[in-house]
Amino acid sequence: MSLLVVGSVAFDSVETPFGMASDVLGGSAVYFSYAASFFAPVRLVGVVGQDFPAQHIEQLQAHGIDTSGLVTRPGATFRWKGRYQGAMDSAETLAVELNVFGEFEPDIPERFRATPYVFLANGSPRLQRHVLGQMHQPKVSFCDTMNLWIATERDELVRLLSEVDGLVINEGEAVQLTGCTNLVAAGKQIARLGPSIVVVKKGSHGALLFADGTCCPLPAFPTDEVTDPTGAGDSFAGGMMGYLAEVDDVSLASIKRALVYGTVMASFNIEDFSLRRFERLERADIDHRAQQLLELTRF
Amino acid sequence: MSLLVVGSVAFDSVETPFGMASDVLGGSAVYFSYAASFFAPVRLVGVVGQDFPAQHIEQLQAHGIDTSGLVTRPGATFRWKGRYQGAMDSAETLAVELNVFGEFEPDIPERFRATPYVFLANGSPRLQRHVLGQMHQPKVSFCDTMNLWIATERDELVRLLSEVDGLVINEGEAVQLTGCTNLVAAGKQIARLGPSIVVVKKGSHGALLFADGTCCPLPAFPTDEVTDPTGAGDSFAGGMMGYLAEVDDVSLASIKRALVYGTVMASFNIEDFSLRRFERLERADIDHRAQQLLELTRF
Repeated sequence: MSLLVVGSVAFDSVETPFGMASDVLGGSAVYFSYAASFFAPVRLVGVVGQDFPAQHIEQLQAHGIDTSGLVTRPGATFRWKGRYQGAMDSAETLAVELNVFGEFEPDIPERFRATPYVFLANGSPRLQRHVLGQMHQPKVSFCDTMNLWIATERDELVRLLSEVDGLVINEGEAVQLTGCTNLVAAGKQIARLGPSIVVVKKGSHGALLFADGTCCPLPAFPTDEVTDPTGAGDSFAGGMMGYLAEVDDVSLASIKRALVYGTVMASFNIEDFSLRRFERLERADIDHRAQQLLELTRF
Repeated sequence: MSLLVVGSVAFDSVETPFGMASDVLGGSAVYFSYAASFFAPVRLVGVVGQDFPAQHIEQLQAHGIDTSGLVTRPGATFRWKGRYQGAMDSAETLAVELNVFGEFEPDIPERFRATPYVFLANGSPRLQRHVLGQMHQPKVSFCDTMNLWIATERDELVRLLSEVDGLVINEGEAVQLTGCTNLVAAGKQIARLGPSIVVVKKGSHGALLFADGTCCPLPAFPTDEVTDPTGAGDSFAGGMMGYLAEVDDVSLASIKRALVYGTVMASFNIEDFSLRRFERLERADIDHRAQQLLELTRF
């Protein structure tokens, strides 16, 4: 089944203990769609400025991503500059230029509105609801969010959570949203706001899945090959939803397996800057690592 | 098989967001031996002062712990006072009175020296080596350590690590010992110092096992019932080594299963102060929760 993502397309400049990259392709919708496109056809809705090179678009198209929903507006593309230090658990944002992304009011093309799997990447809950309202009853809708929206648009976010099927959220954001420092308590409380699937992401410590009334913890793929964590969360979401769209099944068993694929895609993504690791990745590598993770975590 | 532990026996005073307890039974050797005694006969070697009540000793004996190696010295028992806040991931030490524990030079009774399973609870590496030197080639020896010894007795600790079979260590200590902020890199580096089994404990995020050249991550048992984390690490080690002594096998499969039991014992311990949760625990509860953990983590 096909999968639609609405989110940012960006130029990232990143510095980590292992190197740096300037003005490379990034953004939530880019990481998500590239990761998901190993599993299912992806439709990308987003905005770029006139400075966005055609070869980036061609690269996405060559990987099975429908970019006909990616609009070009007068002005510059969204730019993010950040730095990771120490354990690289979180980014320090050095500069943000929203540019054309600042006025983005996504208009979903009519031909995309019946897409069964929908991911609302990080964005204002008002805009995420605006997108969801245009879709024709998707089979599975997930959203992401961030600290800014929890602080500034909490009511709208809570409304959105009553409308989506799933949420992916960082541990810090889960604590901020609920006031619970215990992540199991936090996840349960978020599930009571509506989403039948809640995934609390803990970076190198893995993820907690809340579904069907249980909390299932999955470790991250153990690796010391971490070059750049940028996009790990969106690659996780892309692998997870890509797998769900591929098998077109949302039983607990499939959701759990989807988290394995999300974990694997995140583990590949962090091995290099931008999409570089994905560019030299085959589906067989993904399945092999998923099998490895299942074996390592079989206790 | 029987299991020997050398470590502290203490009176703890603890404050957490969920209550407080004053002068309750604690100490690394107490938590370890009580947890381990659900699985195998335990021999405890330690020291207490003249203020230590007979009923504490009787309680340990009633649970299958041989306390004939617990000596009483003139003076007061070791006392620790601490507080947990927020996510309760680490204790803030408010007061320490070493008392008789400060001059403890453990003398292992001759009848205990052939014990096949040995745990050197947190203590100075010099004393831990002094104990190990008295043992008659144990089948499996593990040690614990802490930030203080890494800072003050690093050389002696490195020597100890070349002599033991296993190490349990907190994530922060693993980073301190190796200088690696990536825990997978840290664990691999520690394994190169000697121990064929390294367990890096991550509190609510679970543990990483390094053995047989692989890194196997195990999540913690997901729970929002956390009253007091004091003794969780020693309960983990007790469950783990108790299980190994019970099955008397150190294949990778048994070590992995031992980590499940360690995780389960830690998860029970944190549900109440001191030994209170263990006091109302049956072996069947332990096996039931181990089964639950295996199911929740089966992805």
